[in-house]
Amino acid sequence: MTTKTRNPTGWGYVEDALDARERKALVPMAGALFGGALPDAAPAPPAADIALPRTRVAVPTSLADTVSDDHAARVLHARGRSFPDLVDLRGEHLGNVPDAVATPRDEGELLAVLDWCDSRNLAVIPFGGGSSVVGGVTPEGTDAFPGVVTLSLQAMNAVHDIDARAASVHAGAGILGPDLETAVKAEGLAVRHFPQSYFHSSLGGWVATRGAGHFSTQHAKIEDRVQALRMVLPDGRVAETRRLPAGSVGVDPNRLWCGSEGTLGIITSAWLRCVRTPTARDGCGIAFERFEDALEAARTMLQAGLYPTQLRILDPYEHMVSRMMAGRSARGALMVLAFESAGAPVAPLMAAACDIAAQHGGAAEARDGDEATGDWKNTFFRQPYLRDAMLDHGALLDTFETAVTWSPVPMAYHGIRQAVLDALGRECGGGAVTCRVTHAYPDGCCLYFGFFAAGERAALKSQWQAVRDAAAEAVIAHGGTASHHHAMGRLHRGYARAELPEAFIDALHGARARLDSAGRMNPGLLPAP
Amino acid sequence: MTTKTRNPTGWGYVEDALDARERKALVPMAGALFGGALPDAAPAPPAADIALPRTRVAVPTSLADTVSDDHAARVLHARGRSFPDLVDLRGEHLGNVPDAVATPRDEGELLAVLDWCDSRNLAVIPFGGGSSVVGGVTPEGTDAFPGVVTLSLQAMNAVHDIDARAASVHAGAGILGPDLETAVKAEGLAVRHFPQSYFHSSLGGWVATRGAGHFSTQHAKIEDRVQALRMVLPDGRVAETRRLPAGSVGVDPNRLWCGSEGTLGIITSAWLRCVRTPTARDGCGIAFERFEDALEAARTMLQAGLYPTQLRILDPYEHMVSRMMAGRSARGALMVLAFESAGAPVAPLMAAACDIAAQHGGAAEARDGDEATGDWKNTFFRQPYLRDAMLDHGALLDTFETAVTWSPVPMAYHGIRQAVLDALGRECGGGAVTCRVTHAYPDGCCLYFGFFAAGERAALKSQWQAVRDAAAEAVIAHGGTASHHHAMGRLHRGYARAELPEAFIDALHGARARLDSAGRMNPGLLPAP
Repeated sequence: MTTKTRNPTGWGYVEDALDARERKALVPMAGALFGGALPDAAPAPPAADIALPRTRVAVPTSLADTVSDDHAARVLHARGRSFPDLVDLRGEHLGNVPDAVATPRDEGELLAVLDWCDSRNLAVIPFGGGSSVVGGVTPEGTDAFPGVVTLSLQAMNAVHDIDARAASVHAGAGILGPDLETAVKAEGLAVRHFPQSYFHSSLGGWVATRGAGHFSTQHAKIEDRVQALRMVLPDGRVAETRRLPAGSVGVDPNRLWCGSEGTLGIITSAWLRCVRTPTARDGCGIAFERFEDALEAARTMLQAGLYPTQLRILDPYEHMVSRMMAGRSARGALMVLAFESAGAPVAPLMAAACDIAAQHGGAAEARDGDEATGDWKNTFFRQPYLRDAMLDHGALLDTFETAVTWSPVPMAYHGIRQAVLDALGRECGGGAVTCRVTHAYPDGCCLYFGFFAAGERAALKSQWQAVRDAAAEAVIAHGGTASHHHAMGRLHRGYARAELPEAFIDALHGARARLDSAGRMNPGLLPAP
Repeated sequence: MTTKTRNPTGWGYVEDALDARERKALVPMAGALFGGALPDAAPAPPAADIALPRTRVAVPTSLADTVSDDHAARVLHARGRSFPDLVDLRGEHLGNVPDAVATPRDEGELLAVLDWCDSRNLAVIPFGGGSSVVGGVTPEGTDAFPGVVTLSLQAMNAVHDIDARAASVHAGAGILGPDLETAVKAEGLAVRHFPQSYFHSSLGGWVATRGAGHFSTQHAKIEDRVQALRMVLPDGRVAETRRLPAGSVGVDPNRLWCGSEGTLGIITSAWLRCVRTPTARDGCGIAFERFEDALEAARTMLQAGLYPTQLRILDPYEHMVSRMMAGRSARGALMVLAFESAGAPVAPLMAAACDIAAQHGGAAEARDGDEATGDWKNTFFRQPYLRDAMLDHGALLDTFETAVTWSPVPMAYHGIRQAVLDALGRECGGGAVTCRVTHAYPDGCCLYFGFFAAGERAALKSQWQAVRDAAAEAVIAHGGTASHHHAMGRLHRGYARAELPEAFIDALHGARARLDSAGRMNPGLLPAP
């Protein structure tokens, strides 16, 4: 368990924020990216100075150990960590905050909290690690209720069971990435689910949002790794699915709760499929003149039946930015390729993948561990911290991602990129857009974009919204999804209708009506029927 | 498109039934399995002789081209092909039959049929290839409605689109296995989804029942291969999901309809993920003294990251029966192992898998194409025809399957086997049980059982029910599912509650209520809330 301090107004942990040297290096980079000098840094004010609305609920004495309405807890659980969330947290006043925060230690305490919320008709917002970048935990859309309780699962973080024979682990929803990884290690297992939020996001959050991790292929999406779930429903029932490798007795119950984002009850624990600790690894960087050629190489690899553990492709802009941060230059696209295994031979797979890359003009650059691939991996977990530091300078910068089938990929890449550049031009007078492929499938891939501009401090949220709207419209127009692994949240709620059938949204409301007739669970998230 | 004739009272096509030579070989085999002589054969009477209840609906003139109430159509769509279905179809009278059969050629015609059913409050049973072995299409539980229309998708079988770059195909739900395979072949693609019903089951049926095919690992379950779906809902709405390799905008809409078995609307077409036509293959048979050692070898392979295309394990009884049919003898268990690929090297993977097998006492027997593995593959598609022929002799024989995580597998194997043997002893004075592993996962596998006994002609259905109940109870007690790939159907409805959370069944009813307020779609299938 970490001893670090969660940053109440920024990403992750206070101790991991950019240091002075790293901050200094940002200025010339920003200059290169935005084409001008950035204003001086204005760090986020102390969280204690943020004014909150008075709490509207009175915590019963019987729940005094479980529920708190103190200022720090309310601020820490008021937002996820989207760009507008960060802007909000730098304001003097913060609206749309929970009236209280519940932190039950077991299902009994959780049921007591739900019972209280039921008796007072309070909205309930389940909260895992709080790293949502899509407004998944922001109490917007809760006006119909006389109060909002944010329900943190962080104390329900026990490792319940490890089934080494089935390479599976059962843990409380609140367990954080590193603690889960440590727990299974002694049994020769690994989870290896490394989202960018790995150090402070939770098992339950991963499942509820259909997150993706470190694996570029095969084990990427968490929903494919869920073996069984346990849920507490708003009406006090407990639902548990059976541990199965696969099945066909009707609709798969796990899949109704995967991606339910707290709207269909609270995931309290999950059985997750692990992998055996890898014993072999082989990787390299492969340089391509053109991003499109790297995409074709990736498509060919996947369709040949090769499933690299890592298959990232940095477009020329992303490649340049990643090198720039290390004080170096770069041109062309870079594919970061690796196979790892706990028994299957990796060298022949790596050789076959490199052959395919070569046929598409790729040139193997450096073996794994060398700077070519090291750059990217080392900065992966640091990137959101960089966003905080740049925000100190009033910069507009964020990421978004989509998934697209292969045929529209090149068009989608160029179209989305241009739409965001155009929006940055309109909003900020210019800016930069980068892209990488983070996950690949035989039928398509995930394009993960970053955008950067010198923003206007007083208008950052509206600038951001305009850029994100332009991005989402381009994504939808090119056949993509509003999110490959960041969930719907309140951010994508408005775009969801473009990709989800109306009848499906209806059906979800019908399901919800049976479990939560008052619609008190994470209200304001599901699109209206 | 096949020119063969569907057998109205038996499996598959009339032309593929066992010939005289094959029938003759059954007698000594039955003697060896059941320990006695079988009574003489009494073939199924002609379908035309079956008496049906008078139809309760009047087909409107406007639908005369689409809807038929003729005797042959009603018999052909009255049942799937479970053992009790086959017994029913050998009777003089057949109850629980559709009043009419609709065969729309497009969505317009389908909507007209639904409109008529809505106006008359008729129950609607979607019908794909009719190969359900779990009572998925039997009009039982429809008493609340004044009539039943079975809706065949067979004429909605066009190939709409092939996206070779994304290795995907879009086809009408009614397309049969071979026609889909043929359609994609010219584009260098293959579906390679070969259930035992391959020649006469449909794409829509596979999806609606969460079926499994030929692949033992990785691409086994159809729900993992569905890229997008198109549905017509009972209220006349059309729902279409977006083609995506993966996504996270809330709950996955495809997964609500996968396994919905006609209760949430009619799947009219699907985009399916194909594979590139394999260019390399390597396979062999591996003999094990003990089934348990073969199971351990399989578990180790999967957890090492090896995903064989074929990984079947025949237990000693299954091994013996499969050889006996070819007039040979066998002892011990047999693993049938093969890798195939469209580019990834197979030889090193095969070598690694064989190493693991050897470490568990396995001895490579024969390379692919030789008799060891050939036996099993050649008889796979023939087995249900054998069931028909044995039923002519009054034999009780059927199969069922489950999936279990690895830890309980050996106990489950022995426990289920013994429970079925005991039931056969009680019901038939003895019998035989065989088992094979058909699909394997890193966290568990599918155990597929067969049972054989000399039945009593007048009591076959009750004998079968007693054996199946004993099997299902043992399956559930050992942590398994009532079905790995044959669906819930009416057969498993009673057992579903043991493995599906009550709240989930509630939620499904809630979803259904929004799409089909009268519950007219395949009524009697979903367990009551």
